[in-house]
Amino acid sequence: MAKMWGGRFRETTSNLLDQFNASIPFDRKLYREDIQGSIAHVAMLGKEGIIPNDEVDRLIEALEIVREEIERGDFQFNIKDEDIHMAIEKRVTEIVGDIGKKIHTARSRNDQVATDFRLYVQNKSKSISKQIVELIETLVHLAEQHTETLIPGMTHLQHAQPTNFGYHLLAYVAMFKRDYERFQSSIERNSISPLGCGALAGTPHQIDRDYTSQMLGFREPSLNCLDSVSDRDFALEILFNISMLFTHISRLSEELILWSSYEFQFIKFSDSYSTGSSIMPQKKNPDVAELLRAKSGRVFGNLISLLVVMKGLPLAYNKDMQEDKEGVFDSVETAEISLEILKESIRTLEVQKENMEKACKVGHLTATDLADYLVKSCDIPFREAHFITGRAVAKAEELGIDISEMKLEDLQEIDSRIEKDVLEYLSLRNSMNSRNSQGGTATAETKRQIEKIKEWLENI
Amino acid sequence: MAKMWGGRFRETTSNLLDQFNASIPFDRKLYREDIQGSIAHVAMLGKEGIIPNDEVDRLIEALEIVREEIERGDFQFNIKDEDIHMAIEKRVTEIVGDIGKKIHTARSRNDQVATDFRLYVQNKSKSISKQIVELIETLVHLAEQHTETLIPGMTHLQHAQPTNFGYHLLAYVAMFKRDYERFQSSIERNSISPLGCGALAGTPHQIDRDYTSQMLGFREPSLNCLDSVSDRDFALEILFNISMLFTHISRLSEELILWSSYEFQFIKFSDSYSTGSSIMPQKKNPDVAELLRAKSGRVFGNLISLLVVMKGLPLAYNKDMQEDKEGVFDSVETAEISLEILKESIRTLEVQKENMEKACKVGHLTATDLADYLVKSCDIPFREAHFITGRAVAKAEELGIDISEMKLEDLQEIDSRIEKDVLEYLSLRNSMNSRNSQGGTATAETKRQIEKIKEWLENI
Amino acid sequence: MAKMWGGRFRETTSNLLDQFNASIPFDRKLYREDIQGSIAHVAMLGKEGIIPNDEVDRLIEALEIVREEIERGDFQFNIKDEDIHMAIEKRVTEIVGDIGKKIHTARSRNDQVATDFRLYVQNKSKSISKQIVELIETLVHLAEQHTETLIPGMTHLQHAQPTNFGYHLLAYVAMFKRDYERFQSSIERNSISPLGCGALAGTPHQIDRDYTSQMLGFREPSLNCLDSVSDRDFALEILFNISMLFTHISRLSEELILWSSYEFQFIKFSDSYSTGSSIMPQKKNPDVAELLRAKSGRVFGNLISLLVVMKGLPLAYNKDMQEDKEGVFDSVETAEISLEILKESIRTLEVQKENMEKACKVGHLTATDLADYLVKSCDIPFREAHFITGRAVAKAEELGIDISEMKLEDLQEIDSRIEKDVLEYLSLRNSMNSRNSQGGTATAETKRQIEKIKEWLENI
Amino acid sequence: MAKMWGGRFRETTSNLLDQFNASIPFDRKLYREDIQGSIAHVAMLGKEGIIPNDEVDRLIEALEIVREEIERGDFQFNIKDEDIHMAIEKRVTEIVGDIGKKIHTARSRNDQVATDFRLYVQNKSKSISKQIVELIETLVHLAEQHTETLIPGMTHLQHAQPTNFGYHLLAYVAMFKRDYERFQSSIERNSISPLGCGALAGTPHQIDRDYTSQMLGFREPSLNCLDSVSDRDFALEILFNISMLFTHISRLSEELILWSSYEFQFIKFSDSYSTGSSIMPQKKNPDVAELLRAKSGRVFGNLISLLVVMKGLPLAYNKDMQEDKEGVFDSVETAEISLEILKESIRTLEVQKENMEKACKVGHLTATDLADYLVKSCDIPFREAHFITGRAVAKAEELGIDISEMKLEDLQEIDSRIEKDVLEYLSLRNSMNSRNSQGGTATAETKRQIEKIKEWLENI
Repeated sequence: MAKMWGGRFRETTSNLLDQFNASIPFDRKLYREDIQGSIAHVAMLGKEGIIPNDEVDRLIEALEIVREEIERGDFQFNIKDEDIHMAIEKRVTEIVGDIGKKIHTARSRNDQVATDFRLYVQNKSKSISKQIVELIETLVHLAEQHTETLIPGMTHLQHAQPTNFGYHLLAYVAMFKRDYERFQSSIERNSISPLGCGALAGTPHQIDRDYTSQMLGFREPSLNCLDSVSDRDFALEILFNISMLFTHISRLSEELILWSSYEFQFIKFSDSYSTGSSIMPQKKNPDVAELLRAKSGRVFGNLISLLVVMKGLPLAYNKDMQEDKEGVFDSVETAEISLEILKESIRTLEVQKENMEKACKVGHLTATDLADYLVKSCDIPFREAHFITGRAVAKAEELGIDISEMKLEDLQEIDSRIEKDVLEYLSLRNSMNSRNSQGGTATAETKRQIEKIKEWLENI
Repeated sequence: MAKMWGGRFRETTSNLLDQFNASIPFDRKLYREDIQGSIAHVAMLGKEGIIPNDEVDRLIEALEIVREEIERGDFQFNIKDEDIHMAIEKRVTEIVGDIGKKIHTARSRNDQVATDFRLYVQNKSKSISKQIVELIETLVHLAEQHTETLIPGMTHLQHAQPTNFGYHLLAYVAMFKRDYERFQSSIERNSISPLGCGALAGTPHQIDRDYTSQMLGFREPSLNCLDSVSDRDFALEILFNISMLFTHISRLSEELILWSSYEFQFIKFSDSYSTGSSIMPQKKNPDVAELLRAKSGRVFGNLISLLVVMKGLPLAYNKDMQEDKEGVFDSVETAEISLEILKESIRTLEVQKENMEKACKVGHLTATDLADYLVKSCDIPFREAHFITGRAVAKAEELGIDISEMKLEDLQEIDSRIEKDVLEYLSLRNSMNSRNSQGGTATAETKRQIEKIKEWLENI
Repeated sequence: MAKMWGGRFRETTSNLLDQFNASIPFDRKLYREDIQGSIAHVAMLGKEGIIPNDEVDRLIEALEIVREEIERGDFQFNIKDEDIHMAIEKRVTEIVGDIGKKIHTARSRNDQVATDFRLYVQNKSKSISKQIVELIETLVHLAEQHTETLIPGMTHLQHAQPTNFGYHLLAYVAMFKRDYERFQSSIERNSISPLGCGALAGTPHQIDRDYTSQMLGFREPSLNCLDSVSDRDFALEILFNISMLFTHISRLSEELILWSSYEFQFIKFSDSYSTGSSIMPQKKNPDVAELLRAKSGRVFGNLISLLVVMKGLPLAYNKDMQEDKEGVFDSVETAEISLEILKESIRTLEVQKENMEKACKVGHLTATDLADYLVKSCDIPFREAHFITGRAVAKAEELGIDISEMKLEDLQEIDSRIEKDVLEYLSLRNSMNSRNSQGGTATAETKRQIEKIKEWLENI
Repeated sequence: MAKMWGGRFRETTSNLLDQFNASIPFDRKLYREDIQGSIAHVAMLGKEGIIPNDEVDRLIEALEIVREEIERGDFQFNIKDEDIHMAIEKRVTEIVGDIGKKIHTARSRNDQVATDFRLYVQNKSKSISKQIVELIETLVHLAEQHTETLIPGMTHLQHAQPTNFGYHLLAYVAMFKRDYERFQSSIERNSISPLGCGALAGTPHQIDRDYTSQMLGFREPSLNCLDSVSDRDFALEILFNISMLFTHISRLSEELILWSSYEFQFIKFSDSYSTGSSIMPQKKNPDVAELLRAKSGRVFGNLISLLVVMKGLPLAYNKDMQEDKEGVFDSVETAEISLEILKESIRTLEVQKENMEKACKVGHLTATDLADYLVKSCDIPFREAHFITGRAVAKAEELGIDISEMKLEDLQEIDSRIEKDVLEYLSLRNSMNSRNSQGGTATAETKRQIEKIKEWLENI
């Protein structure tokens, strides 16, 4: 069969061009959306009387046969067909004869590909959102068990204040919740049907775009066809949403790597989610977390790639835009497997509670509490209290002990306003539980945060 | 005055470190937000009885004095003060004495900077949104005057179908409308107050975060303090929103550059928004559009920069995050001036209507109409119609004419099913007006699109 | 067969992990380099007496059998083998029995993968360099035919000065020459063998790294093993070199797209390197050039991806680094096919010489010559001459003519110092040929530039 | 004074345009290079008789006065002058009168800016190279003191094999040496003078580009002027070279942060290069290392920005290219201060040797040695040896001891082929010193590496 657009061309295109130009090696992933879009389009053409109803039935039947063929693995993909749209249309025409060519009435490859790709992105945004919810549930489940497990809260990778591990996990829950909301917002904003926009200017046929939009689950048809065939905002949004997701995943991964090191020993990965070394038999490597951390590079790269592609393109469709898909497919599939494996890694990891608590006894974690004591009980301005505490820490280091182990007289030597009640301020657990302000780390407050998240989970 | 955290340090920090470490050369831009945040915080401390009311009054008065000093240019910024927060607090303390140090009770630099920066991003998202609306209004105003102005609609930078210039402009309106919606969505999602989160774990003081959140115009206080002090999602979102905006601006700029070239001559920039050449006196250069196109590089770079910074950071605050601001400031200021100058350039440009219409007579723009005629009037399947049209175009090129100028007999020679009524299909204006499907280019449909946008403008 | 590092693990790794962790779906591309490296390693182990010579012979024979199996398509790749190294070693062991396991003596996967990947990058840098030379030759060949073909030289996409098309093509030759040099420089700098570095610290075996380095064609073994197993500079360099190449390819593509538009009509692509439209039969689209332009996004993205992966990794090997390959493979393959198709597109395109020359008569291209005349013949300072010329252009536009068509009296009206000899300054061809300074556009000078490039080509 | 190119323009450009268009707020940094270039140009014009010698003298004198004015801070920069070139030329003209305008004979802003910017990049590449050498010297100095200091060599952030700290530092020396070489290669490749290229096509004046090239320290004048005025490869190269530098700096910074944590305690930063916390008085934060790590984001962003700017620009100069400078200035200044502060931080840090050595006793660091013993002394194939060692590690963990502490009988229980001489294989120091292959960690071999580097340092 000749190229669909071959009428005017006297030379046949080169094989090299076929290989360079064809998108079928990757856009075949869109077969389901392409058939879904064609069915909606044909049904509308029937409703409007543009194609007789019996032909509509035969076309839809043929489209469904093709879908089954592809899903059974019986479909022959051929680089000469250029793209999935052509491949399917050609096969339909083989099945139903010449009326197969009518599918393309009042449509162009430009609105067709825009529709297929948008359907894909909307579907994947929904399924990724669902995976994010599952990850949140896994984290919340773990958090619930550790609202009393002390862990050193850090800034600058330095011990700062005692917190609990459940509270720490909730920080990631908050991040992933924002990710979820960001995906939802994109789904809603981009629920717009480009079908029926034609090449760039609409069509003279009397089509019903509200009908196809509704059949495809979109909120409404797009306003302006010239925009719709060259709009890839939805693709950039999913690339960004996935990039944001991976800033969070990479941060969590970094912590999992640190926590599973010999220096921390806060967690142990399940053997099912660890690997060994070919030369060092004693190693148990956090490969999963390392790969998850690294995948951020891949998804950031995909985002920048499409931004570069879209930069400075005149309207409307340009072939440049064929470069929109592979990066999105890659980021989507990266997100899918990463969310699954992250969830499982967390579900199966072992928390080394004693080590977390032991670590709290290093680094003068209750130094701030001393400062707070000075402010609250001795009415010393904060900045001055901070200064006094600094000297107490220096003294403790001189003595080779933690600030929580300082004797009253040592403290009073530094500032005579300090009294006996200072000692309960220096207890680690007291300190953690004292931070009971809204959003704080106190066990009771952490539990309240968990309840709030569970409520949210129930209502989405 | 010694460094605020200097109590424990025996050596003074090096000058080099001061220079490397200080953020005051750029974060001084946040002075207004910093003072706003401090006033809210102090008011709340007063309400809760943590600071006596008379001290609250004196502190707020002092903060307002400092604001005036900065706005008058009377404030001495000093790199030794490290950051704007320290600089302001120090000055307040000079004014009111030791009670100045109480401002920092139940607060940390970590939640303070998170609050200031978030306020800035929220404010700028709102003002940029407003500028986007003004740009849309300018485009709509121009579009209204050109719903009957023919212009060749292009794909692949090749003439494709006749459209009208108003319709073309509306494609950009649709893009900028999405930009507006994206900013709105971010504003809403990030309307969360971090104030009161302390260093990372909340505070033992009995503070009221709902109160400060409301005073600062946020929807609610954040859920988890550990997250809040290390969350920069809002900053990444504005960097992405501006990047998206610039994909659109760069596309429009590319077209403006093409249109103002000798080859197109579709528009003339006003002399107020053009520049000349130092060596070629005849040149009238579209510098504004070129710079606008290029600014996409800058804003994409700022986005990737912060993604890289955030990648893999363990919780909570790390000094890395100080690198969050300069890129955001740069992208915001780039967006502000760019939107202003783009709006003015469009407002003052001259449309060379005759040239646009003349260009439509080149490139067989009504070839698709011939194909449509064959389908509609001769009941020929689309793909075959397309093939016949291809041969007609080849024939026209052989004869050195446009397809719209072909004689009936020439057409009939190609396919005998063609009849006389084909000729009106070949008229450019008829062709444009025939595409009256929803979102299409017909003048009447273009006007409907304009009405829809105006309605939207009235309701935002 | 159990996982190679499975001794210590009590649970079998999950299928999900296999899928996430395995690199064999992509690193199988390195089979040739892996076998080459193993042969060198085994030969060295034999030479040093670490493995008996008869075993060396059997191992090398087995490695060669495996290579043939892979090349014949008879090799079973299995995701359970994790990576190409394991897959090959396992197969070798099947062939030769237990001595197969000796291949890995005094080696680790860390130095093995570093060696394989570096060999790949070195080889591909060489083959891409060769393709660049072929592209240069194609451009030079075309340039030679067009050293007298006038074309408007542009800045800001505005006609500026008359140049010749050969000269224009040579600008791209100069760019691609720099690309060639950049690849050469990387090849030389990275000609360093990591083989024998072990996991991170060298090996206690008495190996000869000079020997394997030489066998593999490297200049010398690396200095420090800890660095070598975690060095991916060579990979980043090829990603950058390809990105630079694509800044140039995208610029040339942009011009090809412009030149093949109806507005310019400077070139026609061969039908073998153009495509049509499914709905607009008259279209002849510059798809190749558009895709080439867009591929810049892909290769820039791959560069940033690996930069992100490498950011902040502690020494030495981390699993993150497994993310180094796919982007490099993708950029390399993109460069390969792009250089081939670009060369062929240029080789087969048709130059529409008359249109280029006609275009020179638009836009007052000889305005600068008038300015130069005023300086040279009338001794007027340049800036003033520029100002006078500006007025002449304004006058020409008023009269609706090009500056080259102005009458002497019109010019003298503007400045009385102008005399009759001005007229030859205004001729387009004279103007082009007058710019005969080193590197200038005069035909003779263009020819000299061609000679210089040909000389360079002969000596590489 | 009117705009230089104002002759043809009837409206004055808007203030907004001045602000948007002007580069003088940032390109004033190039004043020195601009004056240097102008002096060379004027000297050449004199030599060629294009300007009389007495005027040349007066012009050069005036240029030098302007340089002094700028350096003294007496120069009035004004946004109306657009760029540094115009500002200087205008001032020269004020000083010497109308002959000032002759500076611009046979030159354009396009070649002028290309020359200035290239000179800047070449100079900065040289000074940064020098700083890299100083950093290397600092690292080598520290390495020399620690060739016997045991430190756990890591992969996957897991203890792997015992190495020495000097060896570890040399890995960074190797990286920075490659950075140095990369800068050198760029300096050499880009030592090309664009001066005299004019706007895009050369000049009709009889200029001597070899002369100016030599005066400015370039190797030779460029081949093709059209290329030269739009070539920004040199700018992209320095952005890439700095990005590569920061992949290394960020890796070292990550390790410094880890090492200075409570969990590691391998190093202590000098108080001069640390900072404290405003709320947690005990904290000693590695701010310098954190900022250094984060700066990678900034410099990667600058690289991608300019790649985006250059993508798809038609020849020759486009105003887009004005966006080339700020990113380069920012990356250069970031590199300068970062290299300085990194060097000082390392020079002044305290190595906590005992902690490094203590850490080696955790994690079965000599497990590989056991495997090597099995291969070497018991003639067991490596893979099997590895498997046996895995079981030994599991046993040690069961017993709660390190593998180096295992008793002979426990080992023999696992494999009866093990004999008494195994014990010396399990000693940490022996293990480190056993890896004496080329590039390995043995103290003697580390010293050899140091000697090689010192030799290299002496010869550059």
